[in-house]
Amino acid sequence: MPYVMVQIPRTPVPPAPRSVPTSADVARLAGVSRATVSYVLNNTSAVRISEPTRHRVHEAARELGYVPHAAARSLRAGHSRMVLMPSPTVAAGPLYSQFVHDLQQSLSHLGYTVVQYGASGMSGQEAVRAWAELRPVAVLVPGNGISAEGVAVLKRAGAKAVVALAAEHVPGAHTLILDHSDVGRLAARHLYERGRRRIGVVVPVERGMDMFSTPRLAGVRAELAGTGAEVTELRMAHTEESAVELAARWPDFGLDGVFAYNDEYALPLLRALQDTGVRVPEDVSLVGADDLLIARLSRPRLTSVAIRIPGGPDLADLVDRAVHAPGTEAEYADAIQVALVTRESS
Amino acid sequence: MPYVMVQIPRTPVPPAPRSVPTSADVARLAGVSRATVSYVLNNTSAVRISEPTRHRVHEAARELGYVPHAAARSLRAGHSRMVLMPSPTVAAGPLYSQFVHDLQQSLSHLGYTVVQYGASGMSGQEAVRAWAELRPVAVLVPGNGISAEGVAVLKRAGAKAVVALAAEHVPGAHTLILDHSDVGRLAARHLYERGRRRIGVVVPVERGMDMFSTPRLAGVRAELAGTGAEVTELRMAHTEESAVELAARWPDFGLDGVFAYNDEYALPLLRALQDTGVRVPEDVSLVGADDLLIARLSRPRLTSVAIRIPGGPDLADLVDRAVHAPGTEAEYADAIQVALVTRESS
Repeated sequence: MPYVMVQIPRTPVPPAPRSVPTSADVARLAGVSRATVSYVLNNTSAVRISEPTRHRVHEAARELGYVPHAAARSLRAGHSRMVLMPSPTVAAGPLYSQFVHDLQQSLSHLGYTVVQYGASGMSGQEAVRAWAELRPVAVLVPGNGISAEGVAVLKRAGAKAVVALAAEHVPGAHTLILDHSDVGRLAARHLYERGRRRIGVVVPVERGMDMFSTPRLAGVRAELAGTGAEVTELRMAHTEESAVELAARWPDFGLDGVFAYNDEYALPLLRALQDTGVRVPEDVSLVGADDLLIARLSRPRLTSVAIRIPGGPDLADLVDRAVHAPGTEAEYADAIQVALVTRESS
Repeated sequence: MPYVMVQIPRTPVPPAPRSVPTSADVARLAGVSRATVSYVLNNTSAVRISEPTRHRVHEAARELGYVPHAAARSLRAGHSRMVLMPSPTVAAGPLYSQFVHDLQQSLSHLGYTVVQYGASGMSGQEAVRAWAELRPVAVLVPGNGISAEGVAVLKRAGAKAVVALAAEHVPGAHTLILDHSDVGRLAARHLYERGRRRIGVVVPVERGMDMFSTPRLAGVRAELAGTGAEVTELRMAHTEESAVELAARWPDFGLDGVFAYNDEYALPLLRALQDTGVRVPEDVSLVGADDLLIARLSRPRLTSVAIRIPGGPDLADLVDRAVHAPGTEAEYADAIQVALVTRESS
């Protein structure tokens, strides 16, 4: 292969954007070997290098605008400080945004940087290989997005720890078991105790929500099995129009209780039901989930299933411990805790 | 420096997680040169390599679990397909979450992957150098987070395009000028036209919001300058408690109009004011911003300043064009468009 010689700039003007400076360019400009450039810029203490030489290398790097590769540097340093998280495939709701923000803050205090990797049409092993290429020290998968094979790929690429928040154990990963069926169970039990027997369950039509909505619906069905109560699935989009449309068909359903998936779906439905003359909670008991701030602002205030997942500091601490003690993978059962917050809507 | 020999595994068992396989390991196992490994795994067409050799390299890579470095590979390929965005320093609101989601979808259709880089305690040039280390092909900075010097660092590291959504032009970057003072201006004009003369402006206490709240407040002041109307700054957190506390001190302020920063702050304030007997809009006209779904669910429904920023497809298209035509940097004035949506609260 022909070797392309990169011109040494004659003036301290940085090269045009198209020619990306390499450590070889720095070496040439400083009149030292590439190894010396690497030792100096990575602060390697194993090799003694004179102060004038160090100075020359730093000057050359500055002049050329040389930035080391993260991946290459992290390998030399032992590992990176990057914690990679795949981005959710749906627009993040308030609970998830706060979760990521808190986690980012906590990991930052421990010296890590969170990098969220966008969904890119890739899936399964292909996506995992793309993550591996960034050489993260840890990968945190907030949904059911990784298999045992994926964990192995990441570890072979240098990841010290994989933490999964999933419905089932992922071999090789620290798995926090998040069983969303408990959310549905608790809502159903409450509605049943309120004397409700014809219970609707809102199922969002938006793609990517089934990861949560399917176990929540299953939890409702499981809780009410054998009680004689009936469960009706209500498909709804997170829009005012969809809520209005659902409310218009309300008499057909003959419901006296609704678990509305979460507070974000419950509130448009509440408003639409009230506007058609349905009284909440007199005619229909309504329960949301996530216990968002908006649940406390409606009239009536919304009963909601509060969901506690591990907070930023705890999860950051788990990631840090996992990074420092590979081979200690464990399953954390019941990482999700649910509690009913009873307000006026039920 | 002593050269550490990496053992060739004797069995097809992958090495323990600690020893990250390199292209040298693959070369050794396949019995070929590192250059050959690189040609094969990067599908280089410049060099003819026999099918058996290709097969041996692929087998060795698979056996060792070798994954190329993203940065190294992107340099060889010319450039990466990574569009880097710094993460916001505050938890993302619904508008921003939707923005990122739409942009991610649109860029994915064009073959790019969005990587959100977490705030990590670094700032200014230090942060920019950390971004540069990932070798993104483009960087999209949604706030006032980059300078001309930062743009230069990114371009020298191979970024073809930097797109900034900022209040002022950033030399070297495609800048979409987002002037949030227009949001405040429009709200203030509406309140003034409604006959309101003692106008409160909510300013969030949360850190990182001043990027938006400062120009919005300035817009209100600018619009009302010389009219005799008075402007009162109201510090408030995005919690029910803070809204209740503000409402309790309401008689002290003597206000007849409020611009509540956005809908997320307007709604807790609306509820708290109503609970203390203040009538909206009879006693106080209330205006939010962002025109969120929740603004249409309250009683009274909330007047809001709708904000239109370039959508996912348009912005993705700009990024793609910028990547393919370096040197065409331009300033796009008035990239933010505002429109008043008048409802019942004012």
